[in-house]
Amino acid sequence: MNRSVEDGDFPAQELWAVADALADAARAPTLSRFRQQGLGIENKAGVAAFDPVTEADRESEQAMRAVLAERRPQDGILGEEFGPVSGTSGLTWVLDPIDGTRAYMSGTPTWGVLISVNDVQGPRLGLIDQPYIAERFSGGPGRARVDGPHGTAPLRTRACATLAEATIFTTFPELGSAEEQRGFQEVARQCRLTRYGMDCYAYGLLAAGQVDLVIEAGLQSYDICAPIAVIEAAGGIVTDWQGGPAHGGGRALAAGSPEIHAAALEILRQVPA
Amino acid sequence: MNRSVEDGDFPAQELWAVADALADAARAPTLSRFRQQGLGIENKAGVAAFDPVTEADRESEQAMRAVLAERRPQDGILGEEFGPVSGTSGLTWVLDPIDGTRAYMSGTPTWGVLISVNDVQGPRLGLIDQPYIAERFSGGPGRARVDGPHGTAPLRTRACATLAEATIFTTFPELGSAEEQRGFQEVARQCRLTRYGMDCYAYGLLAAGQVDLVIEAGLQSYDICAPIAVIEAAGGIVTDWQGGPAHGGGRALAAGSPEIHAAALEILRQVPA
Repeated sequence: MNRSVEDGDFPAQELWAVADALADAARAPTLSRFRQQGLGIENKAGVAAFDPVTEADRESEQAMRAVLAERRPQDGILGEEFGPVSGTSGLTWVLDPIDGTRAYMSGTPTWGVLISVNDVQGPRLGLIDQPYIAERFSGGPGRARVDGPHGTAPLRTRACATLAEATIFTTFPELGSAEEQRGFQEVARQCRLTRYGMDCYAYGLLAAGQVDLVIEAGLQSYDICAPIAVIEAAGGIVTDWQGGPAHGGGRALAAGSPEIHAAALEILRQVPA
Repeated sequence: MNRSVEDGDFPAQELWAVADALADAARAPTLSRFRQQGLGIENKAGVAAFDPVTEADRESEQAMRAVLAERRPQDGILGEEFGPVSGTSGLTWVLDPIDGTRAYMSGTPTWGVLISVNDVQGPRLGLIDQPYIAERFSGGPGRARVDGPHGTAPLRTRACATLAEATIFTTFPELGSAEEQRGFQEVARQCRLTRYGMDCYAYGLLAAGQVDLVIEAGLQSYDICAPIAVIEAAGGIVTDWQGGPAHGGGRALAAGSPEIHAAALEILRQVPA
């Protein structure tokens, strides 16, 4: 593989330590406002008023950026809430301080903090952290595991062979455009079980061999980079709906096995760009 | 209120201790098979083969029945997996050993163990337990609280005034019959945010003031008795779609405030029985 930062130069152990430190740093600011009474209700002053979700988002990203400023000042940063930072190392930290804002607002424990380290080719390592459950899915050099409230388990996608046996997830039935919805529905129609509402947590479940497909559209790069790293480390495949790289955002097709990926891609490929 | 077991005779403290013991007893059998590799995939032998979800369901209910046999032999039992037991006390334990089988099969932490104590009028106390998160929503005499991984918090529904501000949940977009789906969709269309996929966990979130409406159809009695107790203790309202008692199963409308309940009921009442 033609990577910009060669494997020998990639300081995986140090980067894992920093990635864990970032996720640890994001837990307090995200949890401090989670499940506040009435979090999801707008106040009468409207959008200009204090927005606790946005506050939690910002504080979470600031906490992570403070760790990076101290420990990896040579790296770039691409985050949801603040401007990009250029680095000199060829590595960029891609941060989504709260993925699944609507889940967060509704009190469901399926939002997450997404962190990846990318080189110019895409994600090299990543993690999906769920602070309320205290559960962390991580994947990349030397790691494909979930650390949760009942211990640590390896991540390994499952070898589902046909759509007829597959469980498929997406966050909303109304994903993306009308054409994108039809593409999703056509795949889902052939699957055994369709489930909604899991946000980034669904990617963790795919890596853990619990579900077979996650299909989404309208993503930002920071929504998908960490899931790509986790799923690929667990043996799965993530592409866009044409079979190309997905780390730029847009449409994502994540599958636990090559057979399921190919079967879904055959359908999604026909959705007009 | 004309209750069959008068408040003075209702041994709330003892029943809470037993209810907690039941939920504790269900944790090991439900967790032992949760997130097994390939749990959601049928094996080639088909339905007659070993079914780990059903096994977990049965072991969970057996564990709870064993506690009841020892500590409350005078009470009746209505459970999902085994036959009803008649009691002499006028009280019946209503047990759903795993509510949200599809959530369980998919690895999502939104299934639950449902336990309530009913008299002839309906649920008197109940709890919704999520073993993976180690989170327990409970409501009834002397209790309206959630005990979770970050401590204990009171349960109190929120005072949402209009559907336009409300967050609504149901488990699947395809709930019940086509007419029931249309009724749900008509309510959801007027709400601010619609979310899917939370199973019984959504009732806990309603009691916790995080969401405003949960609407379901096709329920069994054991699916809804515990949520009724928890939500009523937190200040919410649960009825069927005609405004009558919901504890017999069928269609349920759970709301955090009288205004939201009335607004949703006005729509759902028009769905043919």
